[in-house]
Amino acid sequence: MKDKKKPLILITNDDGIKAGGLVALVEIAKKIGEVVVVVPNESYSAMSHAITVKHPLYVKEIKHKKSVTLYKVTGTPVDCIKLAINKLLDRKPDVVVSGINHGSNSSVSIHYSGTMGAAREGAINGIPAIGFSLLSHSYDADFSHTKPYVKKILKYVLANGLPEGTYLNVNIPKESDLKGLKVCRQAKGKWVEELIEREDPRKRKYYWLTGYFKNFEPDATDTDEYALGNGYVSLVPCTIDTTDYQHYDILKNIENELQV
Amino acid sequence: MKDKKKPLILITNDDGIKAGGLVALVEIAKKIGEVVVVVPNESYSAMSHAITVKHPLYVKEIKHKKSVTLYKVTGTPVDCIKLAINKLLDRKPDVVVSGINHGSNSSVSIHYSGTMGAAREGAINGIPAIGFSLLSHSYDADFSHTKPYVKKILKYVLANGLPEGTYLNVNIPKESDLKGLKVCRQAKGKWVEELIEREDPRKRKYYWLTGYFKNFEPDATDTDEYALGNGYVSLVPCTIDTTDYQHYDILKNIENELQV
Repeated sequence: MKDKKKPLILITNDDGIKAGGLVALVEIAKKIGEVVVVVPNESYSAMSHAITVKHPLYVKEIKHKKSVTLYKVTGTPVDCIKLAINKLLDRKPDVVVSGINHGSNSSVSIHYSGTMGAAREGAINGIPAIGFSLLSHSYDADFSHTKPYVKKILKYVLANGLPEGTYLNVNIPKESDLKGLKVCRQAKGKWVEELIEREDPRKRKYYWLTGYFKNFEPDATDTDEYALGNGYVSLVPCTIDTTDYQHYDILKNIENELQV
Repeated sequence: MKDKKKPLILITNDDGIKAGGLVALVEIAKKIGEVVVVVPNESYSAMSHAITVKHPLYVKEIKHKKSVTLYKVTGTPVDCIKLAINKLLDRKPDVVVSGINHGSNSSVSIHYSGTMGAAREGAINGIPAIGFSLLSHSYDADFSHTKPYVKKILKYVLANGLPEGTYLNVNIPKESDLKGLKVCRQAKGKWVEELIEREDPRKRKYYWLTGYFKNFEPDATDTDEYALGNGYVSLVPCTIDTTDYQHYDILKNIENELQV
């Protein structure tokens, strides 16, 4: 019999089952509640909010211990959340936690991120959700300095909940001497692409997507980019509502001009 | 020599190069400007804002006529926009147009949609962008009634632009007797999943994602769901900024409680 009094923490990631960030997250979560981990069976970077509609999904239960159950799914992080909520869990999770991602998901990177897709899917399903990311892509990255913040934020969300449709995007610098946490807004910026052009053995040209992030507002002090660049953990509350309400008012006023 | 005075219209979709929605869109666009079509080489449903990072991208130029150039890419709709902007085009497009999708992308479906991912990528790159969708998944769907609206909105955006970071999510009912267009906000709702469970010949269980959309606010009259359910085209102005500013204020006030 599972202990129904403990909060149920649903965890996923997009770096695979052995990723250090996942291990660190599970270590924290299992001290706080009952943990179910449902992850893609392979590393699935940059899958955003994608779901699998062309192929069926297979699920494999890997481990079932007292406080941690582990499943692997042949799908995306968002697929994992959908399967967990609708098939694998016997009750609604109290929180969805995604990560800890190996690599930043600040600013517009949230749109490409499978880690944040999974958190957003939690919010769409009315479950408080958090995505955590460390600013290091290294497979061997050290997550020890992230743990006090992950624990603090997870406990805060379990105690206080989040409004319907809100989820948190938390990014953590790789340096261990953190100055604290800042509640931020998403910085304006973009990935400046530098496509690498090569030729394969059959003389066909191909391209690799690569690039660097450019912050469009380096002087603003209320953004996630500012916080991260100055030794702080960034926490951006995000909404599943994409409506641009400022421009809504403008377009609503000229609605007549758009009729045919 | 290309005519530099005509607006440059970059088009993509996620239904493949022969989809009726793409053909309809190109027919309209080529009367308005120079058209470059860059599409995935296969149908890529529900790819959201995913990009390809594990494999290189191949590009094939299919057709080069006076006013329409056509490329196929071995990637996602967002990959297509990135490649077009950074490699294939000799100038910045005046507008990115995605679709016309075969199937609705209203309410939260925007998050799963590759069509809307491509439009969002345009906005991230500072290009006015529009995603069009028809509320029919049929391959043979009739798009003739969509054309006056697509033309009207495309011309409006070319003439007036959109604010930095704003893009438009336009959905069109499948019935031809449209009552007009409504500027809307994104409805609150979600996909209620009904995973189909089956067994393969090797006795392994597998699941298909399926389900139906549930509108959480059926009585609200300012949502895209209301407009579409009442015979109107819905136009939602969307923003790439995911920040939840209401909850930002609340969390900013208790920032001290989140320090470790």
